[in-house]
Amino acid sequence: MDDSVYMEKALELSLSGVGRVNPNPMVGAVVVNHGQIVGTGYHKECGGPHAEVFALNEAGEAAKGGTLYVTLEPCSHYGKTPPCAEKIIRSGIRRCVAAVLDPNPKVSGNGVKMLRDAGVQVEIGLLAEQARKINRVFFKYITSKIPFLFLKCAITLDGKIAARTGDSQWISNESARERVQYLRHKYMAVMIGHGTLSADNPRLTARIPGGVNPWRIVIDPGLKTDLRSNFACYDDGKSLVFTSESKRNTEKARLLEQRNIRLLYLEGSEFKLSRILEKTGALGIDSVMLEGGRNLISRAFAENALDGGEIFIAPKILGDGKALPFVDGFVKETMADAMELPHVRYNTYGDNISLEFYRN
Amino acid sequence: MDDSVYMEKALELSLSGVGRVNPNPMVGAVVVNHGQIVGTGYHKECGGPHAEVFALNEAGEAAKGGTLYVTLEPCSHYGKTPPCAEKIIRSGIRRCVAAVLDPNPKVSGNGVKMLRDAGVQVEIGLLAEQARKINRVFFKYITSKIPFLFLKCAITLDGKIAARTGDSQWISNESARERVQYLRHKYMAVMIGHGTLSADNPRLTARIPGGVNPWRIVIDPGLKTDLRSNFACYDDGKSLVFTSESKRNTEKARLLEQRNIRLLYLEGSEFKLSRILEKTGALGIDSVMLEGGRNLISRAFAENALDGGEIFIAPKILGDGKALPFVDGFVKETMADAMELPHVRYNTYGDNISLEFYRN
Repeated sequence: MDDSVYMEKALELSLSGVGRVNPNPMVGAVVVNHGQIVGTGYHKECGGPHAEVFALNEAGEAAKGGTLYVTLEPCSHYGKTPPCAEKIIRSGIRRCVAAVLDPNPKVSGNGVKMLRDAGVQVEIGLLAEQARKINRVFFKYITSKIPFLFLKCAITLDGKIAARTGDSQWISNESARERVQYLRHKYMAVMIGHGTLSADNPRLTARIPGGVNPWRIVIDPGLKTDLRSNFACYDDGKSLVFTSESKRNTEKARLLEQRNIRLLYLEGSEFKLSRILEKTGALGIDSVMLEGGRNLISRAFAENALDGGEIFIAPKILGDGKALPFVDGFVKETMADAMELPHVRYNTYGDNISLEFYRN
Repeated sequence: MDDSVYMEKALELSLSGVGRVNPNPMVGAVVVNHGQIVGTGYHKECGGPHAEVFALNEAGEAAKGGTLYVTLEPCSHYGKTPPCAEKIIRSGIRRCVAAVLDPNPKVSGNGVKMLRDAGVQVEIGLLAEQARKINRVFFKYITSKIPFLFLKCAITLDGKIAARTGDSQWISNESARERVQYLRHKYMAVMIGHGTLSADNPRLTARIPGGVNPWRIVIDPGLKTDLRSNFACYDDGKSLVFTSESKRNTEKARLLEQRNIRLLYLEGSEFKLSRILEKTGALGIDSVMLEGGRNLISRAFAENALDGGEIFIAPKILGDGKALPFVDGFVKETMADAMELPHVRYNTYGDNISLEFYRN
């Protein structure tokens, strides 16, 4: 069989780690000897053993003289676990095919060097683009420490996120809403504006079997977050509120902190997504899904802050000039000035559809 | 081989008549004998021979004892051509499989009866739903004399048909715009409002190889149609203007009529799509594609006048509250009140997508 068949298998395996390994990368590995798969593995959780370890342990003696296919360059340093390159060398693997180099400049190429120095034949670049796309979050965060920002929103065919009364339940069908639950599991945090918090009181949990609940971030300059909201009722330490410096040491701040909600303070001029993401990244959060509302979404487009997104479209029309648009506040005189979403693909969810886009 | 394989072939053949047979139906026919296709045909042009005639002529003697697959019940009356049922009987066909009965109550079942009376075995209903869908236009028009109304529009992701300045070129990509040319060939007429005429000065022609230009209809109560517009420059007698009764015998009316443009006069209270379509249908026009603008589209939704449509969506955002929405004028208090488009399917055109819908 072709090398790429095994690499595809490794990529598929890597996806099993989605939502559980952040801020680590998703990685999959396959060991092949005499045309037989003798071991497989994937990175299961942040801090746990790497994909190569599972695959090599499963292969045992059968790894000797075999080929290891791995979706990311094996590590060469002692992090939370010992270096995989060492384990590969000891296992007797003859050839290592890796999809991409580790993007971390401190690591990149060192794993390859360690293997080659020990006489292992190393090839890099097989299905590289696919491997990079799977780890878009990791590739951005490891090099910039700025979280990957992903937009999720649901709109009618005429581009509205709510009726004039604010009512928005439901735009999407069940199948599309289930996908949103998966996205909350996939990305490490979700972010909303205070307007959405008070209008929808969302739970912001990943309601799929085995789903990992994301961190919850509310942008709330006026610190109006309701203590009775769903948001204020978690006790897992994964709730953040970005509020104004002037709210520091207020009674409301104290009450929220008692609820194990972390408050981050910004000067008025700092209320930009770039600054908010910087502070979020500093907490070790590698990805943020923006869930609205209109102001936050519009700002994300205006600041060109989005790395990607999925916009769910329902075949419904409000046809009401007073209904809420999903993005506004721009002055575009001509169609040529319109923002064009890059690298678009479409997914269908029954009679709903989504447009997925990525910066790269 | 299975009966349905031959019927699928006949349905495929029928589509070759698209845009050329109106207000007749598209029909395809296949003659099979001893497991071999010995003749095929389709209805090529309004007034020309029917599909069965082509197929039986091609089969010749080989039709004897064979089976005829036809997508619509063979006719039993002398219209522009002699009845097909007679020809089938004379050809020696033993069995006739028709997808659907002719929906015309004056005809429906008579073709079948004539054949059965002559000893031909007749079966009806194979791939009936597919056959009906292909001839949605015919099925509506033959029974109601009201043209099939099909909406075409191109919108941004935020539901706009133009920037605040009115600029709308281009929303769609080339591939989507080419599809529109095909639709102008497919439907017998296109209809626009006077606003669109003056803003875009569209040519309203079917710019595809061999395309049949549609009738052109402008809704223009104030009779402001510019004599220098593209619309006013055709000399094929396929231009109509619906205007106000008060414009009768005016100088402008005279000038337009000199250009071979037919004027149809309505009282103010008659300016409803239902009345306009009734008058259009009386001219033998079986289908109208509504190409905008906003007022006409909004009225079509408000009057529930649409039989179907194709809405092209480009992955662009204007994000401008003053840009022109594709439909407005409704008051919808809740999302549950939104108009839901029925029987939706999606088509992709490169990075553009379209939503196609049908009433039934």
